[in-house]
Amino acid sequence: MTDDTMTQDDAAARLKELVEDIDFTMLTTQDAGGSLVSRPMSTRQMDENGDIWFFLADDSKKAREAEADSDVGLSYADAKGMRFVSVAGTASVVHDRAKMEELYSPSLDIWFEDGLDTPDIALLRVTPVTAEFWEPKHGKIVMAAGMLKALVTKDTPDDTMRDETVSF
Amino acid sequence: MTDDTMTQDDAAARLKELVEDIDFTMLTTQDAGGSLVSRPMSTRQMDENGDIWFFLADDSKKAREAEADSDVGLSYADAKGMRFVSVAGTASVVHDRAKMEELYSPSLDIWFEDGLDTPDIALLRVTPVTAEFWEPKHGKIVMAAGMLKALVTKDTPDDTMRDETVSF
Repeated sequence: MTDDTMTQDDAAARLKELVEDIDFTMLTTQDAGGSLVSRPMSTRQMDENGDIWFFLADDSKKAREAEADSDVGLSYADAKGMRFVSVAGTASVVHDRAKMEELYSPSLDIWFEDGLDTPDIALLRVTPVTAEFWEPKHGKIVMAAGMLKALVTKDTPDDTMRDETVSF
Repeated sequence: MTDDTMTQDDAAARLKELVEDIDFTMLTTQDAGGSLVSRPMSTRQMDENGDIWFFLADDSKKAREAEADSDVGLSYADAKGMRFVSVAGTASVVHDRAKMEELYSPSLDIWFEDGLDTPDIALLRVTPVTAEFWEPKHGKIVMAAGMLKALVTKDTPDDTMRDETVSF
């Protein structure tokens, strides 16, 4: 127990901030040949359950790959800020008009020309299994040992970086 | 054949530029439980064969995962420049002192405290199987149809973005 640790709740809250702030992620799926392929996606939300939401086209290759093998990865990188996030989770394609209305914004019209009425518009929900993030330590809040619910810190060679793991 | 296409050679050359310029990538491996986990890595080089080289510790979890399942993914994201690269490839851990001397720089001392004499220092070589990149089209060179060796462009909903696929 050192001041390098965060509680699991604090780590989860920081994960949400990082994911929503970095926004663009690379979604990795396994294709039919076993290759790990990625493509950029814009993060809409990490909700109160930790699920991460995206829009996609129902008939896209990524939707088919996520349905064939639901194990997916999300990689977030802000190299300038040296902030990185890995989320390993399971994906499902969801058709939920109310959730789409909650998450849609006009900036998505470039991808979905009829907005929410685009025939094949759908949501991709990624439910995290584990997540890990790295960021510079400077400025972080030092927490009392009594607040710690779980030890989530690992040693890294460069101890000016914080590396936290979150389990769901 | 439109002016939206690049030759395979030009796409490969551009891929090398993007990979070396973005530098930090998220390396995705499949862990023992089937989860797709990532961690940040600094790209040392994309060589004349297209292989991408990194330093790592021989006994690290990522080295073990890459040896257990050599299918890996590399995700590069420069969200500010809207440049994204996905490389799907096969990884191997390589012990090659001459190659290490070629690629090592003092900036790596933070990870390898005895430099090239650190006991478990090794190279990770990722041999691409397929690669895909996305970047804004503005300013790109329009190529004559006669130069085209392969059609590497796909349609994207947003036609101000270039999306190229490179096969190895």
